[in-house]
Amino acid sequence: MKPSRTSLKIGELATGQDLELPIFQFEPADITAPSVYIQANVHGAEVQGNAVIYQLMQLLENCELRGKVTLVPLANPLGINQKSGEFTLGRFDPITGVNWNREYFDHKVDVAAWYAEHSHLADGELIQAYRAMLVERCQIRLQSEWGVTTGQQQAVMLQRMGHEADIVLDLHTGPKACKHLYCPEYDAEAAKLFSIPYTLLIPNDFGGAMDESVFCPWWQLSEYVGAQGRELTVPVSAFTLELGSQEYIDLDDALVDAKGIMAYLSHRGVVADSVPAAPMQRFACYLKDYKKFHSPMGGMVEYLAKVGQPLVAGEPLANILRLDQYGSSKVLTPLCLSQDCVPVLHFASASVYQGTELYKVMTNVFVMTNSE
Amino acid sequence: MKPSRTSLKIGELATGQDLELPIFQFEPADITAPSVYIQANVHGAEVQGNAVIYQLMQLLENCELRGKVTLVPLANPLGINQKSGEFTLGRFDPITGVNWNREYFDHKVDVAAWYAEHSHLADGELIQAYRAMLVERCQIRLQSEWGVTTGQQQAVMLQRMGHEADIVLDLHTGPKACKHLYCPEYDAEAAKLFSIPYTLLIPNDFGGAMDESVFCPWWQLSEYVGAQGRELTVPVSAFTLELGSQEYIDLDDALVDAKGIMAYLSHRGVVADSVPAAPMQRFACYLKDYKKFHSPMGGMVEYLAKVGQPLVAGEPLANILRLDQYGSSKVLTPLCLSQDCVPVLHFASASVYQGTELYKVMTNVFVMTNSE
Amino acid sequence: MKPSRTSLKIGELATGQDLELPIFQFEPADITAPSVYIQANVHGAEVQGNAVIYQLMQLLENCELRGKVTLVPLANPLGINQKSGEFTLGRFDPITGVNWNREYFDHKVDVAAWYAEHSHLADGELIQAYRAMLVERCQIRLQSEWGVTTGQQQAVMLQRMGHEADIVLDLHTGPKACKHLYCPEYDAEAAKLFSIPYTLLIPNDFGGAMDESVFCPWWQLSEYVGAQGRELTVPVSAFTLELGSQEYIDLDDALVDAKGIMAYLSHRGVVADSVPAAPMQRFACYLKDYKKFHSPMGGMVEYLAKVGQPLVAGEPLANILRLDQYGSSKVLTPLCLSQDCVPVLHFASASVYQGTELYKVMTNVFVMTNSE
Amino acid sequence: MKPSRTSLKIGELATGQDLELPIFQFEPADITAPSVYIQANVHGAEVQGNAVIYQLMQLLENCELRGKVTLVPLANPLGINQKSGEFTLGRFDPITGVNWNREYFDHKVDVAAWYAEHSHLADGELIQAYRAMLVERCQIRLQSEWGVTTGQQQAVMLQRMGHEADIVLDLHTGPKACKHLYCPEYDAEAAKLFSIPYTLLIPNDFGGAMDESVFCPWWQLSEYVGAQGRELTVPVSAFTLELGSQEYIDLDDALVDAKGIMAYLSHRGVVADSVPAAPMQRFACYLKDYKKFHSPMGGMVEYLAKVGQPLVAGEPLANILRLDQYGSSKVLTPLCLSQDCVPVLHFASASVYQGTELYKVMTNVFVMTNSE
Repeated sequence: MKPSRTSLKIGELATGQDLELPIFQFEPADITAPSVYIQANVHGAEVQGNAVIYQLMQLLENCELRGKVTLVPLANPLGINQKSGEFTLGRFDPITGVNWNREYFDHKVDVAAWYAEHSHLADGELIQAYRAMLVERCQIRLQSEWGVTTGQQQAVMLQRMGHEADIVLDLHTGPKACKHLYCPEYDAEAAKLFSIPYTLLIPNDFGGAMDESVFCPWWQLSEYVGAQGRELTVPVSAFTLELGSQEYIDLDDALVDAKGIMAYLSHRGVVADSVPAAPMQRFACYLKDYKKFHSPMGGMVEYLAKVGQPLVAGEPLANILRLDQYGSSKVLTPLCLSQDCVPVLHFASASVYQGTELYKVMTNVFVMTNSE
Repeated sequence: MKPSRTSLKIGELATGQDLELPIFQFEPADITAPSVYIQANVHGAEVQGNAVIYQLMQLLENCELRGKVTLVPLANPLGINQKSGEFTLGRFDPITGVNWNREYFDHKVDVAAWYAEHSHLADGELIQAYRAMLVERCQIRLQSEWGVTTGQQQAVMLQRMGHEADIVLDLHTGPKACKHLYCPEYDAEAAKLFSIPYTLLIPNDFGGAMDESVFCPWWQLSEYVGAQGRELTVPVSAFTLELGSQEYIDLDDALVDAKGIMAYLSHRGVVADSVPAAPMQRFACYLKDYKKFHSPMGGMVEYLAKVGQPLVAGEPLANILRLDQYGSSKVLTPLCLSQDCVPVLHFASASVYQGTELYKVMTNVFVMTNSE
Repeated sequence: MKPSRTSLKIGELATGQDLELPIFQFEPADITAPSVYIQANVHGAEVQGNAVIYQLMQLLENCELRGKVTLVPLANPLGINQKSGEFTLGRFDPITGVNWNREYFDHKVDVAAWYAEHSHLADGELIQAYRAMLVERCQIRLQSEWGVTTGQQQAVMLQRMGHEADIVLDLHTGPKACKHLYCPEYDAEAAKLFSIPYTLLIPNDFGGAMDESVFCPWWQLSEYVGAQGRELTVPVSAFTLELGSQEYIDLDDALVDAKGIMAYLSHRGVVADSVPAAPMQRFACYLKDYKKFHSPMGGMVEYLAKVGQPLVAGEPLANILRLDQYGSSKVLTPLCLSQDCVPVLHFASASVYQGTELYKVMTNVFVMTNSE
Repeated sequence: MKPSRTSLKIGELATGQDLELPIFQFEPADITAPSVYIQANVHGAEVQGNAVIYQLMQLLENCELRGKVTLVPLANPLGINQKSGEFTLGRFDPITGVNWNREYFDHKVDVAAWYAEHSHLADGELIQAYRAMLVERCQIRLQSEWGVTTGQQQAVMLQRMGHEADIVLDLHTGPKACKHLYCPEYDAEAAKLFSIPYTLLIPNDFGGAMDESVFCPWWQLSEYVGAQGRELTVPVSAFTLELGSQEYIDLDDALVDAKGIMAYLSHRGVVADSVPAAPMQRFACYLKDYKKFHSPMGGMVEYLAKVGQPLVAGEPLANILRLDQYGSSKVLTPLCLSQDCVPVLHFASASVYQGTELYKVMTNVFVMTNSE
């Protein structure tokens, strides 16, 4: 089965040129499984997700599908095309500085009020009504007489597509990073299916990202009706997959991650074929234990700790080289932590200001035991 | 009286060079009035505040001072020196994209708990204890083992100086703007003293800016103890003065604003000499009525509405010129609002993407009657 | 008569999106006059030329045309859409740093060799053969197996269109500037027709700009055959019009410049209607007398000298404000020149590094007497 | 022996802060060998040269020196500190776009005239007089009443130090690159001493770089007097060492290159100790055979050819991935060359515009036979 291709206008440049997204869609005749929405490259330099979508579409063409799958590569055309020197300055809007992945809409649903009006509905209808409300609110958001920002328009148009799906995957990368997954705590079992060794378990807080914008309203609903004595499993799944390092395309590695996604889709019944998860040890920590380490000084950086490899307390993360201090002990300063950790990513450049985020590390890491 | 000059290290560059702030201080022998803290140029392109500090220091040298006055021009050395083409890219951190004026620390004081422990104190002692707590929390914030970002370090070091003063003025400008003042609602009378015709009355919400970081914790305290039946006027004043347009220095106009500040300081007793406020009609609106208008399309912009001049509903703010559409009606699109407003600022560039913030306008504007 | 509209692909972005130019063409049935090529906005922030083309096309629609007129607004889509903060970073390629107006192709024709082969041709045939050679060389340049840079491809595709015309106008602006014209010395009379008071008379040196890329090969031919005793007037005219300041659109002022262009086209017979030149005093200097003044120090700049207004030796161009030096004589430094000049443009930002080009000034200015 | 440390002011920022270079100098009491000047990090992201200087200074401290050695790490403080996103935008001046390594001064010495006046001098005196002239011209250049640009001031101050030495090493890196050396043709033997496998042999053309600015005037003199029948070996040596990839610090690898430099200095007698060149096969090509390959299309790039590894004609350099073309043959395009080559460097980002310089490759590569 071949996907259909459409496009969606999400903005206009100063020259008048349209900003358009390519949208690929696999729509089986007989739908019995959840629908899926996958996007990539919302941060301009994080290109590998496109390669994963490329490999995934080829796999999907050759399997039996039971749910609709929508794929949006190159999801931020303005960011992708925004070069600054030999680098893609696509992490934030070049005009406003706002991170493209913090522009999604916080519905701030008054769940109590909404549920008071809809509590009579059966679960299926309840879910349908709630989803319709989320989609409509995105629509209203886009139609403000005062307009919305460039980044909000793009984000809310993507989010609207996300709300219409049951499963949402947002494909990112770190700067220099090992593969890791942002997974809501309620969905921790899913983390054992992707080809990703490290998982961050995130709570029900909206921080502006796509995955949160999709699952938070549902999680809130689930918790609220739970408190009212009605059990309602969160009916959507949304994850951010961090597929290694930015500014890097590797088709072979993309196939590995495409197969991990297939394993998850197989598990969810979207793909009829049985695709096993890749065997690997999987580790996790809670988001509160995911720490940012900022450089205590300016200088040149020799990154010593490898991403994805455990680091014992007291072993150096990095050396700071300060040639201006040659002749003193400050010429070379090793930076260490006082606790064990797993470095997950580090800064992309080899020179930093004081305060530059040097490493992100997982602490209090635990093995995800296989409950199945 | 001449000011003393010291400097404060607030960061380190990649080359190892220190980032330093010049600090000027007038400290009269006999202090009977509130202390004052004034900073300028936190956004790199907003340079006119430096010229105002220059004129103000010359006025202060020649008057009788009764309170300590601390002045910090050039308050963001990294931002000021960050050029991009013929422009100063100093609105946000070039690495993270975070607005330099959204990095201040939200104390999130648990006012109830704090007051439970300190309610026995008399007003003077209560204020002293609360202030000491705010200063100490800034200090703790700066000493995190994980470090803080470049922008947080700069902001919290400025904020700590702000907490030590009774009056805080943060000197900014708009992109292309008329003069306007951000004034907390509780301090509206103060707005009649500065040489600024337009005032935005802001509520007790922390949005990350310097003025809010200073007054919000006090306003919260005042409201809380008020609810407990104890009257405590907010003991600090903090304002953001928007002194016209960025990328512009005008010494004569700086003198006008320096005199406006002198009128306020005179009113507060900091300056013994009587300095009258400049006679002018002053207008205000509430922050909720201060609207951002985003361009509904990409194109070239002819800005038609002048900043600081009322605009009747239906009159055009701007024309969007779209040469690619020559021959159709879309080649020239006038943009209008459906309500009366006062345009306060517009975008600095003459070409926009769809969604670029084109104008900020005041609606529901009212005259500030002179109650004195 | 309405223009036709076509488009030309001049590049491809990272997302795969085409970079396209809109091309408008007036082509009268009966052609008896020179052909004209006009482009605008090769530097991204220099947008006013688009407004001039807008006004000019409306004038052309209502006049009797005798020559073909090709107009290319928005000629650098990549540069126009490249924002950095509230500014258009469109002066140089964001990847390579190369000025978009220094990418034109230097034919380095071996005129002696070429003329040895073609000296038998009559003037008309000679011109036709030389033009065909220039166009073909552009074509070859674009077909290199190693490819050409993004900027070269754009430039050479524009240049090829320029070579096909007899009259080439390249519409630019300065940063903060008065109107001025780059005019080759052999064509000085033409400077009296545009609505532009200041003219720079440029010699036969190729510096990489569009106008030079068009006229230099012809000027070389003319000089060479002149030395061989054959008189051949340079058969092409090419000018760069600097239409005031960047980041600024003004439709009324655009009409003034459109009429100036009409006066020139009328003089050249392209427009049958008689359009007189606007009466104004016109001044000129030679390019060697057009001086760049670099700031001798870093600091904040109060621009004092107005562009387009003569400045007497010893009068200040600008003040440099250095708050870090408050208390010393260095806090305010006026910058003066030791000779009379006319400031033509100044830097766009109000803060500079040591060495930033602060002003460009004309020296040894003379009145262009009207020889007609 | 410990080096002395001084500093040199080479500019001033907008805040007034000085731009300073640290200068380290080893000056033996008894000088019998050529003097050496080594600088690093003129391009802001090319940091590894600092690490090499760090290792080299430690080696120099422990050897017997016979010539003066001057080392300038961190040679472009403005460029090093100029961040754009997670990258150092230090290849070109952020205001003007001019490459920091194309700002050196072209003396354009009228060698014939100069020699006419100085031909009576013996070789030693001739060299001394010529050197004094070059240094003085740099000085004059810096004292222009119109000032020089920020980049010219920095470059000419560095160049002046270079002219005072007999041996000049400029330490750079490529974007993603293997180690390679720019070596003037007259000095090809020297290429066998550094720990660098690939050499580009460059002719006597000034392109704006440091090494050329140092050796070109001497090469011209040597050639001119040679034509007059007087043999004068070029008395200076100047090389650009490209030490791998930018944005990368590796102290172990820096030691390898420091030892390579020691081998050269030992060969030249600067270091009394005998330091052998590292055994390795060394390859070279002429600069005319060093080719830039520009991407024929926009898209995402999978770099396939490894730098420093020979590539056979027809083997792919890279794949261009174009998700917007999924479903057509254009979704994946391998890019090949029709001749054998050694890829030396490739672009740093994994997405490109049409025309982006994708790879630089050596063609017509030959082995440098060891003549010793």
